[in-house]
Amino acid sequence: MSRPELKNDRFLRALMREPVDVTPVWMMRQAGRYLPEYRAVRESAGGFMDLCTNPELACEVTLQPLERYNLDAAILFSDILTIPDAMGLGLYFETGEGPRFKKTVRTEADVNALPVVDPLKDLTYVVDAVATIRRELNGRVPLIGFSGSPWTLATYMIEGGSSRDFKLAKGMLYNQPEVMHQLLEKLASSVAAYLNAQIEAGAQAVQIFDTWGGALGHAAYETFSLNYMQRIVEQLIPEAEGRPVPVILFTKGGGVWLEKIAATGCHAVGLDWTVDIGQARSRIGDKVALQGNMDPAILRTSAAAIEAEVERILASFGAGCGHVFNLGHGITPDVNPAHAGAFIDAVHTASAQYHRK
Amino acid sequence: MSRPELKNDRFLRALMREPVDVTPVWMMRQAGRYLPEYRAVRESAGGFMDLCTNPELACEVTLQPLERYNLDAAILFSDILTIPDAMGLGLYFETGEGPRFKKTVRTEADVNALPVVDPLKDLTYVVDAVATIRRELNGRVPLIGFSGSPWTLATYMIEGGSSRDFKLAKGMLYNQPEVMHQLLEKLASSVAAYLNAQIEAGAQAVQIFDTWGGALGHAAYETFSLNYMQRIVEQLIPEAEGRPVPVILFTKGGGVWLEKIAATGCHAVGLDWTVDIGQARSRIGDKVALQGNMDPAILRTSAAAIEAEVERILASFGAGCGHVFNLGHGITPDVNPAHAGAFIDAVHTASAQYHRK
Repeated sequence: MSRPELKNDRFLRALMREPVDVTPVWMMRQAGRYLPEYRAVRESAGGFMDLCTNPELACEVTLQPLERYNLDAAILFSDILTIPDAMGLGLYFETGEGPRFKKTVRTEADVNALPVVDPLKDLTYVVDAVATIRRELNGRVPLIGFSGSPWTLATYMIEGGSSRDFKLAKGMLYNQPEVMHQLLEKLASSVAAYLNAQIEAGAQAVQIFDTWGGALGHAAYETFSLNYMQRIVEQLIPEAEGRPVPVILFTKGGGVWLEKIAATGCHAVGLDWTVDIGQARSRIGDKVALQGNMDPAILRTSAAAIEAEVERILASFGAGCGHVFNLGHGITPDVNPAHAGAFIDAVHTASAQYHRK
Repeated sequence: MSRPELKNDRFLRALMREPVDVTPVWMMRQAGRYLPEYRAVRESAGGFMDLCTNPELACEVTLQPLERYNLDAAILFSDILTIPDAMGLGLYFETGEGPRFKKTVRTEADVNALPVVDPLKDLTYVVDAVATIRRELNGRVPLIGFSGSPWTLATYMIEGGSSRDFKLAKGMLYNQPEVMHQLLEKLASSVAAYLNAQIEAGAQAVQIFDTWGGALGHAAYETFSLNYMQRIVEQLIPEAEGRPVPVILFTKGGGVWLEKIAATGCHAVGLDWTVDIGQARSRIGDKVALQGNMDPAILRTSAAAIEAEVERILASFGAGCGHVFNLGHGITPDVNPAHAGAFIDAVHTASAQYHRK
C-alpha cells in the first residue's frame, strides 16, 4: 500500500529525539466532550461505544480537533477497555459512573476461561478505524495507536469497573500472585497483538496507558505492571513504512519510577504534572524523549495563565531534542475549546526559541 | 504539671534519629472501624463526630488499639476537618459519602468572613481530649497530635467535601491565587495555634496530614501546600517537658518531592508505599527520619505475606537510626485485627537485627 508523504512529522521526530522547528503538541482525549461537534456526533450515534465500534464515526471524531487546532498528531478514537470487552466481559457505560463490566475476573477459573484476543478477528472495528483514519488523514500528521496496560486492564476486569482502592485487584495480586501473573500474561499477549495490528493498519506511534500503575507499591509496580509493559515493548513491530514506530509509556503517578520506565526500551516516557520536566530530564538523561506535562486543570483558567504555564514547562525542559508537549492527563469535558487552542498555539509560539540551531 | 516518666520512648527517639532497640511502629487510623470494640463504642455514642467531640470517648477509643497491640505510640482520635468545622462550615458525615460541609468557601468574601480559629475557645473538645488521653496513657507510650495541612483543609472547604479532580479548589488556585493565599494563611495560622494547643495539652509529637498535596503540580505544591506547612513548622513549640517535639510531614503522593519536604525543618517525612524507603533514605540522606511505608492493602493478605513485606521494608531501610514503621495510609475497616497484630509484632521481631551495636 502506498501512502501519501507525511507533511508534519515533528511528533515522530521529537519521539526519536531528532531536531524539530517547534515543540510538537497533542492532548490526551483531544477528540472528546469539550468539543460541541463531538457531542453532536456522539448524540446522533447513540453513545460512546457506538462511536468506538463504527470506523467511520471513530474517524470523524478523531479528525475533529485537527480541524480546529494545529495539533501535531491524531490519536485513534477508542477506549482503553476494548480488549477485556473482546474477551467477553461485556463493557458498558452508566451515566456518570464510568466504565463497567457485566462479568468480572476473580478466580483462577475465571482467568483460565479468558481467551487471548486476536485483534484481526475480535477487534476488527478498531483495526478498521485505524485504517480509515490513516487514509483520511492523508499525511497531515501522524496517527497514534494505543492500549491500556495489562495491570490497568486487569484492575477494571477484577473490580468490574473503576475503583478507589483496588481492593479486589490488590487482593489477587498479593494473595494469588500466580493467578495475577497468568491474567497479566494473557493481557500482555493480547495488548502486543492489538498494538501490532494497529501498527499494521497504519498507526505510526503507539502509547500504553498505565492509568492505575501509580496505585501500586514500587516493588509491585515493577513486578506486576512495568514488567508486562516491557514484554509488550519487546514484541512490538519496530519499524513500519521505513521509519521506527516509537512507543510511549505513560504511568500516571509514576514520577518516582521514571528511570525504570525509561529502561524498558520505550522511546518516550509520559509525565503527569507532579513531576518537573526539567528534573525528569536530568534524572533520565537523554535516553528517551519526554511527553508532558501541564495539569489539565490549567485549561480551565485563562489564555494568559495557560501561556505562562506553557512557557514555564518549555523553559524547564530547556533547549534541545526530545520533548512532546501534552497534558499530564486527559482534557476534561468542561474546558472552553478556545483555551485548548490557546494552549496549542502557545506551545508552538513559545517553543521556537528552544529549537534554534 | 508533673507527668509520669515515659516508659517507651522508641517512637520519639527514632523521630530524632537516636538509637533504639527495635523499630517503633504505629498505624494511621489505628483507632478505627476494623476494631469491633471501636464499632461498639461508636454505635453507642451515635456517630463519628459524637466520639470526636466527647473527650472521654475519644480517649477510650484512642487507647483501644494499645490494649490489643504493642504499639509504640498513641494518636489522638479526631478528624482532620475540625478546623473548618470550628470556622463555622458545619461538618457532617453522610453514610458512605465521606465528610461534607454545609457551607462552602468559594469567593473572596467567603474567605474574608472566615475567622482564624482560637483552639482554646473553639476546639476545647480536642484540647480536652489530648489532656485526657495523656493522663490515661500514664506514660505507656507517647501521644501524637495532628492536623490536616492548609491545602488539604482548603480542598474540602472549597469543594464542600471529597473530590476526584479538585476542580473548584484548583480553579481558585489558578484563577484567584491571591484569594487562595489568603485562605491558606488563615488556615496556616489556625493549624499552628491548634497544634501548639495540642502540644501544650500533652501531645509529644505532631503530624501534618497533607492528604491531597499529591494532586498538585510540582510548582503549585511548593507554593500552595509545602510553603504553608513550612510556615507552620516554624511556628510550632520546639520543646516541651524537656524534650524536642518532633514534627512529621506526610504528603500522600509526594514521593517526587521528598528532598523539598525534608528541607522544611520537619523532623520526619511520611512516605506512602509508592516509594522505596531505601531509595528515599539515599535521596534525603540522614537529614530527617522516615516514617512508613507498607501498602495497607497487604494487611488484607496473610500473616506470612505481611511478615515478608515488613522484612522487605526493614531490609530496604537497612541498619541505623531514623525509621518509624507505619502504613503508607490509614488501615481500612475490612482488615482482620489479627493481621494488624501480625504486622506490629513482625516489625519488632524482624527489626532487632538492624539495631545491634
